[in-house]
Amino acid sequence: MMMPSQANIVEMGARDGLQNEVAVTTDAKLTLIANLAEAGIKKIEAGSFVSPKWVPQMADSAELFRQLPRQQGVTYSALTPNLKGFEIAQSVGVDEVAIFGSASESFSQKNINCSIEESIERFTPLMQKAKQQNIPVRGYVSCVLGCPYEGHINASEVARVSEILYKMGCYQISLGDTIGVGTPLDARKMVEQVANVVPIDQIALHFHDTYGQALANIQACLALGVNTFDSSVAGLGGCPYAKGASGNLATEDLVYMLHGMGIDTGIDLTKLIAAGNQISQIIGRQNNSKVANALS
Amino acid sequence: MMMPSQANIVEMGARDGLQNEVAVTTDAKLTLIANLAEAGIKKIEAGSFVSPKWVPQMADSAELFRQLPRQQGVTYSALTPNLKGFEIAQSVGVDEVAIFGSASESFSQKNINCSIEESIERFTPLMQKAKQQNIPVRGYVSCVLGCPYEGHINASEVARVSEILYKMGCYQISLGDTIGVGTPLDARKMVEQVANVVPIDQIALHFHDTYGQALANIQACLALGVNTFDSSVAGLGGCPYAKGASGNLATEDLVYMLHGMGIDTGIDLTKLIAAGNQISQIIGRQNNSKVANALS
Repeated sequence: MMMPSQANIVEMGARDGLQNEVAVTTDAKLTLIANLAEAGIKKIEAGSFVSPKWVPQMADSAELFRQLPRQQGVTYSALTPNLKGFEIAQSVGVDEVAIFGSASESFSQKNINCSIEESIERFTPLMQKAKQQNIPVRGYVSCVLGCPYEGHINASEVARVSEILYKMGCYQISLGDTIGVGTPLDARKMVEQVANVVPIDQIALHFHDTYGQALANIQACLALGVNTFDSSVAGLGGCPYAKGASGNLATEDLVYMLHGMGIDTGIDLTKLIAAGNQISQIIGRQNNSKVANALS
Repeated sequence: MMMPSQANIVEMGARDGLQNEVAVTTDAKLTLIANLAEAGIKKIEAGSFVSPKWVPQMADSAELFRQLPRQQGVTYSALTPNLKGFEIAQSVGVDEVAIFGSASESFSQKNINCSIEESIERFTPLMQKAKQQNIPVRGYVSCVLGCPYEGHINASEVARVSEILYKMGCYQISLGDTIGVGTPLDARKMVEQVANVVPIDQIALHFHDTYGQALANIQACLALGVNTFDSSVAGLGGCPYAKGASGNLATEDLVYMLHGMGIDTGIDLTKLIAAGNQISQIIGRQNNSKVANALS
């Protein structure tokens, strides 16, 4: 079995995590992000340039980036839904941006009121500008293993949307099991199909743990050679589709598994756990990482 | 990849689960066990004939078995630490018993004050009696992927203890990651080594989820052909070695994964979730199954 010797963690806590938690201060975010970098995380999604009407927790993203002390070798990225968001992000010095498409037509319609096709077309001016400015763009595909409205999603559809984003110029495609419903065989088959159109080393897995399957799904895909994974310290971020359920995979649990398998991440697990415990205390809820609870 | 088409769940909630929770009434246990059987579980460990001084939560095991309404096709088993426990268990009509050894010398010494060898020798009269009475005996091996006192445990030692229990007459060897520290590659290598001395269809995996690794570990072992798994509804039972941490793998999360992989268990997940929610309410804590929380 081919197995990567090294893996890249893209830390989602400050964005995909905190956007689904009670709002915290910019200072609290800055501390979290500094702690994550100090723990050895090299890629941190730090904010989102969406309308504060939709995601008030991210309203301070421009201010955050202005104040963010950078650490060499660490990439600080942001989600940008359109050219306007991109331009603000760029003006405050983001290193990288991310755009998103859905593998589910119903999800696209219900969430952003347009078809998958239209949603991706809207990114064209953003992609042009990013290319001119030499800012790398990451592409998210949501609902890759299931949709809250449609249920099952065909892997061929995931591959189709992934290919469009890749051909538009996204340097990496992050495959999101947005509602965490996937299981290992489906996960592997889906990634295999995407790998036909996007090189495996440009694929990332963004698996949510709502049904407790995220690590098993990642484990099943490791042998395909994929080695970039999105996760969220302390499992920050619930699941907006199931009240009280968990959402993002806890980075601590992922790092524990990878290290146990001899896969290097460059991350100091003890420091990571401390970062997760601190932000959990600030938002006033239990740390959602099992590893953190076992070792704290 | 070889993959079983069918899997057997050995439900631990009423024993390994409730022995680590606040004590509940015999009636509450009877209801739980009836609900589990109604959900389609065919093997239920219902009690333990140990000294009530050590495990007060199991003090009513004889009474429980006397009152337990049996359902055809369902096996109700009990843990029996010695001949005396076995004789009481037999007198109240258990279908099957379980004995236990450790793969860790330190764990054996600290927990039962004797060596692994001595602990297993003590089971000889029990095994003889069980054979005479035609009562199947299951053998647990604890600390197969790590020990709270020793740390790493060699797979060769797990295989050695497994072989002794198997040759003594245990029809099945259940490999326990007692403290839940294992990761997928180690789990698979350990099972491979045990499979050299115990037929794979007589091996069961009893993986705890203290570090969130249980499903990934099971997933990594499925391709070896193992198809019997111990788990606990609602993730009942904490971890006695890490306060506040989780212990047993939640049966709901396991069944969800297996069904998602096309592996039949004969279990009705909806009824199983209801059983777990009811007992969680009785013991007054949140259901530890992510699937239950997502679907309730």
